[in-house]
Amino acid sequence: MTRAATLTQKDAQPAAASRRVAVLGSTGYAGQEFLRLARGHAKLQITALGVRDEDVQPPRGAGTASACSLRDLGVLVDAGACDTLVSCLPHGIWKDIARRHPALALTPQIVDLSSDHRDGAEGYVYGLPEAFRSQIARAQRVANPGCYATAASLALLPAAESGWISGPVSVSALSGVSGAGRALQARTSFVEADGGAWAYRAGTEHAHVAEVERTLTTVTHCAPTVGFVPQVVPMTRGILLTAFVPLRQPLAPELARERYQARYADEPYVRLLAPGEWPETRATRQSNRCDLSVTTLHGGGTLLVVAALDNLVKGAAGQAIQNLNLMNGWPEATGLPLESTPW
Amino acid sequence: MTRAATLTQKDAQPAAASRRVAVLGSTGYAGQEFLRLARGHAKLQITALGVRDEDVQPPRGAGTASACSLRDLGVLVDAGACDTLVSCLPHGIWKDIARRHPALALTPQIVDLSSDHRDGAEGYVYGLPEAFRSQIARAQRVANPGCYATAASLALLPAAESGWISGPVSVSALSGVSGAGRALQARTSFVEADGGAWAYRAGTEHAHVAEVERTLTTVTHCAPTVGFVPQVVPMTRGILLTAFVPLRQPLAPELARERYQARYADEPYVRLLAPGEWPETRATRQSNRCDLSVTTLHGGGTLLVVAALDNLVKGAAGQAIQNLNLMNGWPEATGLPLESTPW
Amino acid sequence: MTRAATLTQKDAQPAAASRRVAVLGSTGYAGQEFLRLARGHAKLQITALGVRDEDVQPPRGAGTASACSLRDLGVLVDAGACDTLVSCLPHGIWKDIARRHPALALTPQIVDLSSDHRDGAEGYVYGLPEAFRSQIARAQRVANPGCYATAASLALLPAAESGWISGPVSVSALSGVSGAGRALQARTSFVEADGGAWAYRAGTEHAHVAEVERTLTTVTHCAPTVGFVPQVVPMTRGILLTAFVPLRQPLAPELARERYQARYADEPYVRLLAPGEWPETRATRQSNRCDLSVTTLHGGGTLLVVAALDNLVKGAAGQAIQNLNLMNGWPEATGLPLESTPW
Amino acid sequence: MTRAATLTQKDAQPAAASRRVAVLGSTGYAGQEFLRLARGHAKLQITALGVRDEDVQPPRGAGTASACSLRDLGVLVDAGACDTLVSCLPHGIWKDIARRHPALALTPQIVDLSSDHRDGAEGYVYGLPEAFRSQIARAQRVANPGCYATAASLALLPAAESGWISGPVSVSALSGVSGAGRALQARTSFVEADGGAWAYRAGTEHAHVAEVERTLTTVTHCAPTVGFVPQVVPMTRGILLTAFVPLRQPLAPELARERYQARYADEPYVRLLAPGEWPETRATRQSNRCDLSVTTLHGGGTLLVVAALDNLVKGAAGQAIQNLNLMNGWPEATGLPLESTPW
Repeated sequence: MTRAATLTQKDAQPAAASRRVAVLGSTGYAGQEFLRLARGHAKLQITALGVRDEDVQPPRGAGTASACSLRDLGVLVDAGACDTLVSCLPHGIWKDIARRHPALALTPQIVDLSSDHRDGAEGYVYGLPEAFRSQIARAQRVANPGCYATAASLALLPAAESGWISGPVSVSALSGVSGAGRALQARTSFVEADGGAWAYRAGTEHAHVAEVERTLTTVTHCAPTVGFVPQVVPMTRGILLTAFVPLRQPLAPELARERYQARYADEPYVRLLAPGEWPETRATRQSNRCDLSVTTLHGGGTLLVVAALDNLVKGAAGQAIQNLNLMNGWPEATGLPLESTPW
Repeated sequence: MTRAATLTQKDAQPAAASRRVAVLGSTGYAGQEFLRLARGHAKLQITALGVRDEDVQPPRGAGTASACSLRDLGVLVDAGACDTLVSCLPHGIWKDIARRHPALALTPQIVDLSSDHRDGAEGYVYGLPEAFRSQIARAQRVANPGCYATAASLALLPAAESGWISGPVSVSALSGVSGAGRALQARTSFVEADGGAWAYRAGTEHAHVAEVERTLTTVTHCAPTVGFVPQVVPMTRGILLTAFVPLRQPLAPELARERYQARYADEPYVRLLAPGEWPETRATRQSNRCDLSVTTLHGGGTLLVVAALDNLVKGAAGQAIQNLNLMNGWPEATGLPLESTPW
Repeated sequence: MTRAATLTQKDAQPAAASRRVAVLGSTGYAGQEFLRLARGHAKLQITALGVRDEDVQPPRGAGTASACSLRDLGVLVDAGACDTLVSCLPHGIWKDIARRHPALALTPQIVDLSSDHRDGAEGYVYGLPEAFRSQIARAQRVANPGCYATAASLALLPAAESGWISGPVSVSALSGVSGAGRALQARTSFVEADGGAWAYRAGTEHAHVAEVERTLTTVTHCAPTVGFVPQVVPMTRGILLTAFVPLRQPLAPELARERYQARYADEPYVRLLAPGEWPETRATRQSNRCDLSVTTLHGGGTLLVVAALDNLVKGAAGQAIQNLNLMNGWPEATGLPLESTPW
Repeated sequence: MTRAATLTQKDAQPAAASRRVAVLGSTGYAGQEFLRLARGHAKLQITALGVRDEDVQPPRGAGTASACSLRDLGVLVDAGACDTLVSCLPHGIWKDIARRHPALALTPQIVDLSSDHRDGAEGYVYGLPEAFRSQIARAQRVANPGCYATAASLALLPAAESGWISGPVSVSALSGVSGAGRALQARTSFVEADGGAWAYRAGTEHAHVAEVERTLTTVTHCAPTVGFVPQVVPMTRGILLTAFVPLRQPLAPELARERYQARYADEPYVRLLAPGEWPETRATRQSNRCDLSVTTLHGGGTLLVVAALDNLVKGAAGQAIQNLNLMNGWPEATGLPLESTPW
């Protein structure tokens, strides 16, 4: 495991007692999932659900937390009644809110689930524990990775770190419909989504692609280009991703598997399946785990990695909890399910 | 278009008046779909549904045709009351039946939907009209292609014929659950299939792979190896396939698209989507059409082709009808829907 | 069969050669289904798709028909280039358009799929052929029944006509999601509709209830009140309806079944299932047929009727075609599928 | 609340420290759900998963518990290493096993999820806490109610206890596919279950019906007959049930609602929805709660109750946990989720 992915004595934080959390964007799928997981987390207390003036509908699932205007939320932060902010807002919104509500921007700990700070802007650390655990443990600002990028990065990291990759990587990935967000679209209505699968914006220009390439470059100083074909299939949750990686030298499948096994041996939320087994999203449903299978094709010239995870858990809200656990010196598994609920 | 894919004066058959068809394996998904399509076909008359002694349940959807033991079916063929046989049986069964019922093996026209004769055994012609139209038009024995192989072959043919392919091809494909056949399995029960996607037997050893490689070799005398990752997603019908093809020379996306457009310009059941559009299975539902999108990735070094079709129509029963139309000199579109029913 | 449901010599219309049809509201689910069925109808030619100025999106599935403003459509009607109008618009819209575009209101034949004229307003005949066949055959204006009301009326008609009903009728009905229409709602998004069922607006105040009560009153001069519990389940098409009917006198199940059998013996699109068989929506999918099962409960004191149909076919577009066939003196089954496509 | 449903000082058990549980039938849907819930229950330790000799497949989800033959399980019970037995076996099996393995039959505490002892045979108490809480608290043998019967009983109990019911009750209920159990059937395969709904064995002869009638008779000494129409819809979990109840005297909807509200005011797992709100299964998904709505129809002459619950939780494994909590003097909510996971 790379140094960055392992906590050393120096990184270990004195454990915070507990955190009073304000959630922005709690009505979206990721926001709802965060509230659900936070309810089972002994150290997180949801204090307020921030609501933009233009959001007319009250947030669901508030429990004892009450909806709160952004102005009032700033007052809470100012008074120390709220010390952590988790933004589940769509891309571009939190950045704008932070500008208009400086008190909010001063919240001691912030995790942003949008793509706004994933390039490290404004000092945000990229929140993929398997690559940047020690940095996250020292950070007060974390940008939570995207769901596609989490799956792709976990699929490619060991190969990239080993210097195996000889050329452009090709990725085909399918996602459940919740990956498209909760804004109403004809495309994601039941009648038009059920019973069919579709590809969209295939190519190399995706934000997802840049996010993966950036992570691999940071970790390995090599930058494979990535081609990406996202597809939506009629299920609520889950990502199933296939990566084809051209190798510098032919590799036996057992060796490829051993390298991956060693790399993730201490990772609580990455599991390498046995040879001959292939991932299914169902085995990761409502779990924070990512399942991986590895082999080689074409006489060992191509590495094949297949990955499955729950886009709302390891791909969003669960990873945010994992990051909060690291930032606060709590055991990394606090409040985080490993078991899936397959049906 | 290659010569083989175009009918010349010499190939054109004198049109048969009509055909009296026996169907074997009519209770499976492909068999049921064949009966459905045959009911709307003016020239096909379903005469008998052949039943193996061990198949206790009577076939559904028989309409006016009556179930018939294999022995009695042989008598019908002998008497000329039945001149065409369509086998929708699982792999390995028809071959065995033909051995034990020689009268059946003498049926004037035979289309076998299983994989048994796709390697050309016993003089069967491989029934992919886009590659072998003139041979099919002269054949009395046709091996109907598999659903995955149909999608992959249509995605790769123009590239292979153009001599563009420089190395191993990587294919990721997702299929609806009917692709797994009608035999009962826990994996394809509603509770265990709904809400999840899974990969299986990824690699290069699939029968599908050999089928595609054989077709490309026959047509182009070059033999790219193909790596294949099949996945099942919770929908009834449809295949969505992504092929990544390494190119000998960098290619502009427009040129790639133009070549595909030209190759399939006269094909009634292949449609190239506009640039920026990507296939959806829903647009091919209950249609015999295959939709394709083409572009290049990685600075033009990789060709990306995405294909969608209905595995029970263009991937099975519809293609069988298309082959029967060619074998009998009927207009190729007889009884074959082009329009889809998206929901 | 009642007189009204049977065509006599007097009702029979001289068959029209063919009809040039304008469709309003062709982008909704019922509109799309009407276009799909009309393409397979030898006598219907879709001439224009009327578009309101505020409808920015072009209609899908137009085929050779072109989108056309309402003003231009009026010109077409005026010029005799269009002689039939089918409105698949939501409730309340066509009525308003007719007022603002008098030329359209003068179209020789009009079928309105909305609820606007189901009470007989402006001389519209209620288009349930099983109850009002002869009136429909003489009509130029037909109000197409709602999907729930079609199922409920077919379930209750024989009992009502027989004078069996002694008190209020209780109906529980489940519908596929397309029954909610194509307007975007959170409730009918894939993520929020898949995997769950819900009841809504249960009671006696539904427009559906009034529609059924009106039909029964017209036909039988008795007016049972109807309590109605609509439910939505995660499937695209289909209605499955259960009616509990208190009986004046205890009735043996065989007698109940015989009466229903006799009543619908000549109806091409109503099928009574064998004793012990119960309806499934799948057996009516894409078919214009309604399946019924009948028995008695509670010592014969309660009649139980279960009905299944496809809400987009017999519950909407198919019934509209059936009505057009009657209005034009064509065979009633022209262009109307009896066979279902179960998957 | 009736006395039987409230714990008095006399009923309260001294709380057991914890229980070592053997599970039979752990591979079925109810068994898997029981294991999932038990993992989150502080007082239940799964000690062994009993396996019949003829069950070749090892149980899934065993966690640290190991599969164990019935003979070895008897030894464990004999040695006191296992003091609680939960049977999730299909109907008829546990009864037979108990006869052949007397040691197992002597396990101190037994909960049977099958229908075998729901009639009180062999001293089993019927485990519906809302009706028989004090009896359950003193019992060592509990027969867990069926899912349909739980929903129907909770829907009818207050009306029956109030002496309101004047005649036969009519119930229409829809269930997710897991209600049909895990044995393989064509009917519950994905391709044949998705996209359609079906009714089956409608009438009064169901085991469900007898179970509900027995409960109402025991509690109220009146015995309404119940007509029942079960239906399956394409979702994994959930029951949505509609009951029409003829009333002795017309009743205002508010009064009906108040009576239900009062009856269930102290019940932790029954919730009465606000007027105008109707149950959705999704709001009870993975929760032990049953949601109810109540109103009157037909001028107050008919009571309408709609109920929703998760058939695998309140309808099976969750209710078993609730019963174990009562039998052991633990807080009734131990390890039992109230919150649902709607998607």
